Amino acid sequence: MRDQRVVRCTYYLESEIDPERAAAAMAGEQSSGTFVAVPGESPRIRERHAAQVVSVRGLGVRSPSLPSRSRPESVRAALAVVEFPMENIGTDLATLQTTIAGNLFELGELFACRVQDIELPEEFVAAHPGPAFGIPGTRRLMGGAEGVMIGTIIKPNVGLAEDEFRLSVRELARASVDLIKDDELMTDPAYLPLERRIAVATEEIRAAEQITGHPVMYAFNITGDLAGLRRRHDMVVEAGGRCVMLNVPVMGLPALAWLREFSEVPVHGHRAGLAGSMRSPALGMSYRVWQQLARLAGADHLHVSGLGSKFYETDAEVAENVRSLFEPLGKTLSPVPTLSSGQNVTTPAPTFAATGSTDLLMLAGGGVAAHPDGPAAGVRSLRAAWAAAVDGVSLDVAAHTAAEAGDPALLHAGRAFGGVA
Amino acid sequence: MRDQRVVRCTYYLESEIDPERAAAAMAGEQSSGTFVAVPGESPRIRERHAAQVVSVRGLGVRSPSLPSRSRPESVRAALAVVEFPMENIGTDLATLQTTIAGNLFELGELFACRVQDIELPEEFVAAHPGPAFGIPGTRRLMGGAEGVMIGTIIKPNVGLAEDEFRLSVRELARASVDLIKDDELMTDPAYLPLERRIAVATEEIRAAEQITGHPVMYAFNITGDLAGLRRRHDMVVEAGGRCVMLNVPVMGLPALAWLREFSEVPVHGHRAGLAGSMRSPALGMSYRVWQQLARLAGADHLHVSGLGSKFYETDAEVAENVRSLFEPLGKTLSPVPTLSSGQNVTTPAPTFAATGSTDLLMLAGGGVAAHPDGPAAGVRSLRAAWAAAVDGVSLDVAAHTAAEAGDPALLHAGRAFGGVA
Repeated sequence: MRDQRVVRCTYYLESEIDPERAAAAMAGEQSSGTFVAVPGESPRIRERHAAQVVSVRGLGVRSPSLPSRSRPESVRAALAVVEFPMENIGTDLATLQTTIAGNLFELGELFACRVQDIELPEEFVAAHPGPAFGIPGTRRLMGGAEGVMIGTIIKPNVGLAEDEFRLSVRELARASVDLIKDDELMTDPAYLPLERRIAVATEEIRAAEQITGHPVMYAFNITGDLAGLRRRHDMVVEAGGRCVMLNVPVMGLPALAWLREFSEVPVHGHRAGLAGSMRSPALGMSYRVWQQLARLAGADHLHVSGLGSKFYETDAEVAENVRSLFEPLGKTLSPVPTLSSGQNVTTPAPTFAATGSTDLLMLAGGGVAAHPDGPAAGVRSLRAAWAAAVDGVSLDVAAHTAAEAGDPALLHAGRAFGGVA
Repeated sequence: MRDQRVVRCTYYLESEIDPERAAAAMAGEQSSGTFVAVPGESPRIRERHAAQVVSVRGLGVRSPSLPSRSRPESVRAALAVVEFPMENIGTDLATLQTTIAGNLFELGELFACRVQDIELPEEFVAAHPGPAFGIPGTRRLMGGAEGVMIGTIIKPNVGLAEDEFRLSVRELARASVDLIKDDELMTDPAYLPLERRIAVATEEIRAAEQITGHPVMYAFNITGDLAGLRRRHDMVVEAGGRCVMLNVPVMGLPALAWLREFSEVPVHGHRAGLAGSMRSPALGMSYRVWQQLARLAGADHLHVSGLGSKFYETDAEVAENVRSLFEPLGKTLSPVPTLSSGQNVTTPAPTFAATGSTDLLMLAGGGVAAHPDGPAAGVRSLRAAWAAAVDGVSLDVAAHTAAEAGDPALLHAGRAFGGVA
């Protein structure tokens, strides 16, 4: 049973000096220390407020990963576990982030510093509601969607005129997709304002639902100035919209937590910009850590990259991202793991093999819009590919079987995107 | 005269493929492209909305800086200039950030991607007010402080009880320092709530001003939840406080821009966490780019690290950070370049030599509090060290001259921190 009065973090560090001393310096910087002893740093303060280095495990000698004032030939790598007193942090997310991932990245005597893992005390977790909708709430708003949820992105990302946008939404909504989203680049441009997108999309979705009977969730990107955040959310809700989207790394976790306080619909958490502080293995924080913060801040859907994607993370890493969202975190709901980038009929099989789950939202932009027979066939082909993946049937066999039974959508998609002869 | 309808960025890239093609793929991802051609990507959209690669300059072959799905032995490095149509972005800061520094960091075919420089169109810059106070407004609130402004940080960073905090502020305010600030880790803990810090600090500062006649600015750290941001700002202003502080990278640039809209006092912009997306030379954005965004968002003071600091940036890089704040950016005021970390009497000479400016705020925590003769001597010694630096007098000579004239503060500081025999 571990100490519930501390936040425990595991850091990957590199230092020229003894890693124990480097970890101690970092712990000091992030709690009660400064570079010289100052009056007032009493034993009481050190006892109650100093961060403690719990363990340091050496990982050998290597070339420094990051530049600094000095340029040593080699440095010593280590994993250091550090505990920060809960009393320093309280239950505030921004204070937590400043403590575990603030000035420590600046320290010249470190040549790598990355938060690999975090264990939050129960009291901290309990102070945050987490996602309001999560997987069950999202499925409910999609009319009880079962299995993997299929989403798509309005393409082209930017530049559509209102009439083009209308036709695009119409076609996708009639294709009975579960979710349509704005591209992360699409916010509130003068040539296609958010207000018009909301009006057009909700109108087209309502009309399509009359035909298909299938509720479609639209994730409206309300990323933008904070002064207007609530107004943009309210526009979505008043028009009958069922989801808002936020570019979380750009807006900041505090913006997500604030939106969570008043949002009446699920918050689709996009990760645009996240790799800027995640992709270097020597810096920033791991997805595992970030997702806990984003989850506490209330993201109902959270982008995890995609297996077989055009993004940098390997399939194994993406699967690990997905699994991290399913790990318990107090009483919070899991956000919907949202797979994106290069998703098409070839990706369900490896995704199901690696995650064993269908509590997923797969976003296919080109995979839907560029289907040779149109978006409705694109959506059908993705659902069929998922059914095959879950049933353990190869894409090739499933495609030919479905084609023989009268629906060539998977066959055509398989030939367009690969995996079917 | 360059095209005012585009945002022009310079990227450092690494790719296995031809850098021209890699840059084009990136430009597509960040504007109208997707991984397959989709219906609706009309010539009109490509013409008006596609980002354009203006130039690509090869920088030779090297080992890949970042991990990706593939692990090539070597990659080709290049500087690519890309122009994004203003029409895609409008004048919104979050949309700009998503466009120039969003998903592009994720791209698997890039092994480095960093925004090195940016040129914003006049219309974009003009849409943002920038700092409300900047250097002149800050000096005015410090009673017309001349020369380098001397600030200090309450130390220890965390853990002080209210009575200890009171004594610390009293001593520092009576020392006629220009600015006292909370540590970035100090937000609103239960053991010393912001409300009490505001009450105690403003009371002590008022009392000290009766004695010294010197107005002291206190930068209260109002970092925390956004729902409470305005309330915390208002508490500061209502108590007569003259500055609020925000951990900008943690809170996000939109939070800074929002605070700027209602803040009645200068905003002290701390950079805690910034290095997480800046320190890797292969990722994120340069300080030069970041400061423009933070400046447009309205930071009145902006941390630049410090010459001779314990942080990673070299003195040359810190000086470049300072200079970037003085470059014109539309009609915006320059934020006050705020030097911190390891600052003491030895740092004014190299700082003045490298920047040629006294429009600076130098924060010395230990450099004030740990002065052998106490904080007032600490502040006097820093002012004397700055006077010597500007006059081109060596620290050693200045220290001995002052001591002979009756003030040994600089002599003792020089002996404690170095530079004086």
